[in-house]
Amino acid sequence: MHNPQLNKNGELQHLLTIEGLPKPTLHHILDTASSFVSVSDREVKKVPLLRGKSVFNLFFENSTRTRTTFEIAAKRLSADVINLNISASSASKGESLLDTIDNLAAMHADMFVVRHSQSGAPHLIADHLRRIKHHHVHVVNAGDGRHAHPTQGLLDMYTIRHYKKDFSQLTVAIVGDILHSRVARSDIHALTTLGVPEIRAVAPLTLLPGGLEQMGVRVFTDINAGLKGVDVIIMLRLQNERMTGALLPSAQEYFKSYGLTPERLALAKPDAIVMHPGPMNRGVEIDSVVADGAQAVILPQVTFGIAVRMAVMGILAGN
Amino acid sequence: MHNPQLNKNGELQHLLTIEGLPKPTLHHILDTASSFVSVSDREVKKVPLLRGKSVFNLFFENSTRTRTTFEIAAKRLSADVINLNISASSASKGESLLDTIDNLAAMHADMFVVRHSQSGAPHLIADHLRRIKHHHVHVVNAGDGRHAHPTQGLLDMYTIRHYKKDFSQLTVAIVGDILHSRVARSDIHALTTLGVPEIRAVAPLTLLPGGLEQMGVRVFTDINAGLKGVDVIIMLRLQNERMTGALLPSAQEYFKSYGLTPERLALAKPDAIVMHPGPMNRGVEIDSVVADGAQAVILPQVTFGIAVRMAVMGILAGN
Amino acid sequence: MHNPQLNKNGELQHLLTIEGLPKPTLHHILDTASSFVSVSDREVKKVPLLRGKSVFNLFFENSTRTRTTFEIAAKRLSADVINLNISASSASKGESLLDTIDNLAAMHADMFVVRHSQSGAPHLIADHLRRIKHHHVHVVNAGDGRHAHPTQGLLDMYTIRHYKKDFSQLTVAIVGDILHSRVARSDIHALTTLGVPEIRAVAPLTLLPGGLEQMGVRVFTDINAGLKGVDVIIMLRLQNERMTGALLPSAQEYFKSYGLTPERLALAKPDAIVMHPGPMNRGVEIDSVVADGAQAVILPQVTFGIAVRMAVMGILAGN
Repeated sequence: MHNPQLNKNGELQHLLTIEGLPKPTLHHILDTASSFVSVSDREVKKVPLLRGKSVFNLFFENSTRTRTTFEIAAKRLSADVINLNISASSASKGESLLDTIDNLAAMHADMFVVRHSQSGAPHLIADHLRRIKHHHVHVVNAGDGRHAHPTQGLLDMYTIRHYKKDFSQLTVAIVGDILHSRVARSDIHALTTLGVPEIRAVAPLTLLPGGLEQMGVRVFTDINAGLKGVDVIIMLRLQNERMTGALLPSAQEYFKSYGLTPERLALAKPDAIVMHPGPMNRGVEIDSVVADGAQAVILPQVTFGIAVRMAVMGILAGN
Repeated sequence: MHNPQLNKNGELQHLLTIEGLPKPTLHHILDTASSFVSVSDREVKKVPLLRGKSVFNLFFENSTRTRTTFEIAAKRLSADVINLNISASSASKGESLLDTIDNLAAMHADMFVVRHSQSGAPHLIADHLRRIKHHHVHVVNAGDGRHAHPTQGLLDMYTIRHYKKDFSQLTVAIVGDILHSRVARSDIHALTTLGVPEIRAVAPLTLLPGGLEQMGVRVFTDINAGLKGVDVIIMLRLQNERMTGALLPSAQEYFKSYGLTPERLALAKPDAIVMHPGPMNRGVEIDSVVADGAQAVILPQVTFGIAVRMAVMGILAGN
Repeated sequence: MHNPQLNKNGELQHLLTIEGLPKPTLHHILDTASSFVSVSDREVKKVPLLRGKSVFNLFFENSTRTRTTFEIAAKRLSADVINLNISASSASKGESLLDTIDNLAAMHADMFVVRHSQSGAPHLIADHLRRIKHHHVHVVNAGDGRHAHPTQGLLDMYTIRHYKKDFSQLTVAIVGDILHSRVARSDIHALTTLGVPEIRAVAPLTLLPGGLEQMGVRVFTDINAGLKGVDVIIMLRLQNERMTGALLPSAQEYFKSYGLTPERLALAKPDAIVMHPGPMNRGVEIDSVVADGAQAVILPQVTFGIAVRMAVMGILAGN
């Protein structure tokens, strides 16, 4: 089957989802990111790789944090960055998504970083660009609905590789609202491709999607069992809006049953690392003692995230 | 009469309106734009013409699309760009327009790109800058009320010249809400100056301003008659708010009477081009088949628009 | 006592408040600013001092004007600037201030320019950065609650030194809403440190804070007495919201009692200068004739403000 993310030479054309990306492609991104980690440590944190390129941050859904990471990454690559908060503009004038894309492509955009509340929007844009033969324009999915958040998945893999070196012996637990999480989905695809032998999903039944077992994921509703002996814990953010719905009783109840406390962390391997995509709800899905503790690698994730985004943009611009 | 747009050497000091600009000035802008079209095609889409200059996008009225085109144009000229959405800031603190300008001029602004809902605001700013002897600061009108949108007018002329080469034999029809359109006004002035022998205005009576005949424009309320044998069709956007008012019955009715369908387009010359300033209301003023058809040059307009804005800013900064 | 603004070599590490800064530090900033005044006059208004540095404008309180001055200053130093309007983002997701700072620091921020409605927020951030050992990250207070606005204080000092050369013989009157003014507080500390022998506070009783006399300030409730023979008049902005409260009868009444009219200005020395931090309420705290008159140096303040902010950022980045 045709993979719309790869060009005919098998090189990355868009980054829409981790699903279906070959293992060497993932490692190539992580290796490239590795070279960019040092750039952010320099006095002059800039390389000219994207000089004169126009990167558009198309945020149809507001996310200052994610937008910022892409903006910094692009600027450190010397790109010209244009931030567009679309909900407040063309969308309100009734222009269609694809008309907006046509227009920006006509301005000689080189890259679209797309955040959208609807699953599949970045795919739609990439398909459209192919149809109108704008093959030089690249799309990076910065989170679409419940579908995927591939750069978050990649930075999670970078972090795991950094601390654990080898994927082939690991047990990784993903804990929390897996049902609504594009991060979980991207992580599961990446971990699978990279050869992690045991991936666990830990959540209450109401927050578990169907089909996990078919993806090779072991499901736990008991967090104590789920954390037992793991190397890596990926905590998920609990959206506040879930609390007010019927899915969960209350934040306190959730913390009691699924919050990552020091006691629960002690069930994992002694050198287990704790990850979180942020922003954290302290006292809801994670205890502050754990969040700020020695096993947490939550802030290194952020640092690696810049390097990973620089790598993705750099690779795309080179293809 | 003194033309506030030209300095004493007859060079462009501000771009406020196309009205009154000499034909050689218009051609000079279009010729300069022509050299910038290739810049946007390069690997490194940047020239150092405005390096170290501060361009302020002063948007007293929200328009992401227009702001974006100026932002890209300025960044490709290597300027420092500051976006100011004024409605949300000083204006709410009760500061007057001219106090805001005084302040930004004191920060050594080099150029103001001004969008304002009130006709004449950019003129007012240009007059004020002359009075306070800030002769090095340039004003570009990015759309003021119903008055003018000169860079749109210029990019329309660039597009026509690109496809039709010569203005002196053309028949151009402007179709739609001419009454409220600053684009129509700017186009009529430009077409007249550039020597277009027949300019037509096609609209229902309620959307026709007075005085068109005195400007040398032929008025048609029947679109079939108005499109007959034309070389260029400029469709105007129908503002949604007109629909709810007393001026028009409904979007469907409007489309029935004035929408550009393939059948109507067939009344024009076989090689006629179709233009639209965007964003389009598909199915209201224009049929999607036409919008996406072979005669539409709506996306090239956008591409040329960047080059035209680079040209205007480059010429102003050089004078 | 430890001064969190200075590093162990006594160099400026953060700019949080003018209170406690040594006189040589203030003069060093003003001297450095002096060299930057000429940069803004050049054709290419840029120096490479902060090339490759990431400056974050963290505005937890909206202020387009102040944000703009820092954005221009940073861009003229060649920094990469990221604007974050935090009220609209993480804050709404319930992330704490310090988690936000941790995240941005992990992205290798070099400088935070912080505006916050709560007094002490920039201090809190600076303390936190020290605790997490991010010693290379600098904080500039861009106004916190009623506490301090040190760059405004410094630009006021620059302006006074520019026009009066020597601080040691001056009488300076600060007029208006001193109670709520962080500008007044910063000015009083700066004037005291720089050796101004007579500082006057002129305001109605309801807008005077306690403790002024202990700071060496002479208090006047009668503006005519307060302006008598002064060299410098610093007018303060009257916040509109004070008018609707119980503190003041009305804008007209205020102007009658405390507005700076030509007649009142005539009570000062003939060569007295009139300053205002902007934005002005013409006809409330200041008569337009005075605001636009020969003794007003309100716009030069703005110009010097850019140079002072460039100096502060340049000095911090060098330490």
